Amino acid sequence: MAGLSLFSMPSSGNSYKVRLMLSFLGLNYEHISCENGSDALADAKASGNAPMGKLPALHLPDGQILSESNAILCYLAQGTSWLPDDGLEQARMLSWMFFEQNRHEPIIAVRASLRTYPERAHLATPARMAELLDSGYAVLALMEDHLADNTWFAGQQASVADIALYAYTHTAGSRGGYDMTRFPNISAWVSRIAAMPNYVGLDDIP
Amino acid sequence: MAGLSLFSMPSSGNSYKVRLMLSFLGLNYEHISCENGSDALADAKASGNAPMGKLPALHLPDGQILSESNAILCYLAQGTSWLPDDGLEQARMLSWMFFEQNRHEPIIAVRASLRTYPERAHLATPARMAELLDSGYAVLALMEDHLADNTWFAGQQASVADIALYAYTHTAGSRGGYDMTRFPNISAWVSRIAAMPNYVGLDDIP
Repeated sequence: MAGLSLFSMPSSGNSYKVRLMLSFLGLNYEHISCENGSDALADAKASGNAPMGKLPALHLPDGQILSESNAILCYLAQGTSWLPDDGLEQARMLSWMFFEQNRHEPIIAVRASLRTYPERAHLATPARMAELLDSGYAVLALMEDHLADNTWFAGQQASVADIALYAYTHTAGSRGGYDMTRFPNISAWVSRIAAMPNYVGLDDIP
Repeated sequence: MAGLSLFSMPSSGNSYKVRLMLSFLGLNYEHISCENGSDALADAKASGNAPMGKLPALHLPDGQILSESNAILCYLAQGTSWLPDDGLEQARMLSWMFFEQNRHEPIIAVRASLRTYPERAHLATPARMAELLDSGYAVLALMEDHLADNTWFAGQQASVADIALYAYTHTAGSRGGYDMTRFPNISAWVSRIAAMPNYVGLDDIP
């Protein structure tokens, strides 16, 4: 896949998912950095390089553009061990990925963003932060329960569901303010992913 | 697939997606109705019949349970025309399905729920309802733009992305309070889906 380019936001977990996947797969790509609030991000949107209005956006060698982090992960995983062969395991993988976008990211990433981005600080009322804390713990408890009986989220090895969930979970303590010592299974799973060959961290920007 | 059962919430668009898919595919199933706030729903959760804490949940003949509406759609679509053959088209289908769960349902379905469920009425402040109206129009505009050049959301025929997006879009006017006359392409697409063989409506509960 020569000629891949990725428009991504360095501080965003959704963008990080794709950078991590590309690194795990050993794929070379051009990285176009578009930080939150930057002119580069505004330019990317205005020039059609983020056709669904958000990053990451993966530009393929033939000029086609793919949006939505979890869809990009599934695309890159085709034909690799990151996508389970079995149809039911593939569906379970997708269950966790839709869960991530509908119930995990809108709580855990949002709480982190309210603590991180100064322009959102006025939205971080005590009631809102407390609600996001409680609902985030419920989300993390579902993951913790699953990991009590399973090494990975779907199938017998790491899949793209693990990458999707890792992005905002591994910073849920440092950025989101969640007490992760409550979740030893999640902590062990985070360590397993960080120990994999070709791992890159959120701040390892190409 | 003899022996399928579906635990679903009659008033929920997420549950409706699966009832619609099963009908389009001509599959028989037992329907266990668990309306919002009902004892049946509490029982389903307490007894492990909704393992990820939400409905719909599809129970397979061998006793396995699959959660998350869009993942269930993808599972049921395996080997049918509702899943594009081409890998990139499959990824585009998933892009729209993740968009639906991350950006469409949390706005358009939430606005509808604040107008529909009495126990949520206290959350329907004028500021919140206005914000959900504006952000919902932005989401619908992305769909409208796509449908200016495409008959369906991915590939050359209806896919599960169309079913996923249809559920809360076809009631965005009646339940959500959005002015759908602004979106003629969406309105035509809604009519195309409703005209397909074996179509069932949201209120056609088995």
